[in-house]
Order: sequence, then C-alpha cells, then structure tokens
Amino acid sequence: MGVFSRDIKTMDDLFVHTLQDIYCAENKVLNSLPDMIDKASDTELKRALQKHLGQTRNHAKRLENVFRRHGATPKAIDCPAIDGIVEEVQDVAGEVGNRYVMDAALVAVAQAVAHYEIARYGTLIAWAKQLGRNDCANALEQTLLEKKSADQRLTSLAELYVNRKAA
Amino acid sequence: MGVFSRDIKTMDDLFVHTLQDIYCAENKVLNSLPDMIDKASDTELKRALQKHLGQTRNHAKRLENVFRRHGATPKAIDCPAIDGIVEEVQDVAGEVGNRYVMDAALVAVAQAVAHYEIARYGTLIAWAKQLGRNDCANALEQTLLEKKSADQRLTSLAELYVNRKAA
Repeated sequence: MGVFSRDIKTMDDLFVHTLQDIYCAENKVLNSLPDMIDKASDTELKRALQKHLGQTRNHAKRLENVFRRHGATPKAIDCPAIDGIVEEVQDVAGEVGNRYVMDAALVAVAQAVAHYEIARYGTLIAWAKQLGRNDCANALEQTLLEKKSADQRLTSLAELYVNRKAA
Repeated sequence: MGVFSRDIKTMDDLFVHTLQDIYCAENKVLNSLPDMIDKASDTELKRALQKHLGQTRNHAKRLENVFRRHGATPKAIDCPAIDGIVEEVQDVAGEVGNRYVMDAALVAVAQAVAHYEIARYGTLIAWAKQLGRNDCANALEQTLLEKKSADQRLTSLAELYVNRKAA
C-alpha cells in the first residue's frame, strides 16, 4: 500500500485496491493451509481443509480473471488483517497441548478466515454492481457462495465431530 | 499469549483463551471507532458508527459477565487479527483522497470487523454449549444477534446512500 499517497480518488480505485487486498489474502491463505492440514488430526477436518485448499486456488484464479475483465493487472498489496488471522494459527499451534483441542482451534481459525473473506467479497460485489460491472459481480458472487458453503461445512464438522471429541 | 507454552490443554482452556481474544478485539474496536466516526462524512454513517460504539461498550461489559459467570477473570490477550483489520483503517485513511469514497471504505472496514466478531462469537457459542454452559451461550448469542444486525444495517446504508454517493 502507498503511504499517505491519497491515490484512491474514485470508487473504481477503491474497488481495484480491495481486489488487491483480497488477492493478497487468498494467496496468504493458500500458503498457510498446508500447515493447518498438517496440524489437523481428525480425518474429516483434514479432508475439509484439503477441499478448502483446492477451492482457494480456484478463487485466486477467478480473482485474476476479475482483475483482467476490469482492465487491471492482478497484483497483491499488503493485507495486515489476514496476516493477523494467520498469525493466530501459529499462536494457537504453540499453545495447544492436546490434538483434539487443536482441531477445534483450527476450525475456529478457518472460520475467522472465511468470515473475513465473506465480508470482503460482499463489499466487492456491492461496489461492482454500483460501478455497473455486473460481469465482475457475478464472478465474485460465485466465490462468495462457495466461501459461505465452506463456512457452513466447518460449522457442521465442528458440531458433529470436532467439538465433541475436544470436550 | 504465552509463547509455546502448551497451556491450552482442554476445551475449557480454549474457550477462556478465545474469550480473552474477543475481549481484546472489542476493546481495540472501542478505541478505533471514535477515529472512524471522525473520518466519516455521511450523517447516517456517523450515526450508525455511533450506535455501533454504544453497542460495542455493552458487548465488552457482557463479555466481562461471561468471564465471571464461567469463574474466570476478565482479561485481554494479544489479538493480531483485529490489530490487522484496524490497521486497514489507517492505511485507507492515508490513501483515500475523496470523502465519499472514504465513507465507502469505512463501511467496508466496519463490516470486516463485524464479520470477524461474528465468526468468533459463533465459535464461542458452539463451545459454550458443548461445555454445558448454556447460560454463557445465551449471553453470547444475544451479542451475536446484535453484531449480525449491525452488519445488515451497514449493508443497507452502503446500498442506499454511501456507495451511490461514492460512485
């Protein structure tokens, strides 16, 4: 990000800036998911996180298409929010001394990531529509639906298996 | 947070640890909201953020009650996730050169905060129920409903006023 550059002057600038922020986030999540999969014990949780990894790859590619469709070059800027959420994985990993409790903590972090992304995509869709870019909005909407499904899948998994074992 | 202390051994430890994380988050948000209100131009947005400030104070107090009800002392630990989200307010403030676009950016950050909190409270409620603490779950559920309403209020505000002016 520029430092006090005042270079976001229009809604269009803000849209591209936020695309760059979520593009950074998707890539940081892509980097941290293998470690989370490695730390998970529950087979169903490992499988859910692996599915999440595959979907995240597609979401990053779909973002690249949205950038291009909008006439911008795919680029990631700093994304302190996702850095902070991902940092919590490391914190938790260093503090949890029981593998079932670790699984519960991993689900919680994955859901925090999912919700951050849900907020960002929701905003981007509203802005794309306001800018008359329904083509971009539709592509982003598809990702948003998949993020919401992933979040619901984690909720079910937590309730059915992970939290019971941890308690 | 302890460094590699492995002091989270049970679901109960993890529940208290995550209460400490969201207690930190509520307090950081309390500190950053006056600045956001100050930066907002739209009267309706200012009003919504002021309401948000009042609610956040109540949510922090309600968390203190949940701590005590659960036999723990209210305490905040580091919360890098919310630090990162709040940092984005400063980044955006330094980069946006138009007050209507700034309003749209402020709504986006407020919704990112709301979603992080929604994820955390959702997790805490599930864990409280699993631990047989329905009294804690009910109190947290009340906060969750208010966070979801605040998020929906911001969505309506963005669609009705803020994004239109910004575009």
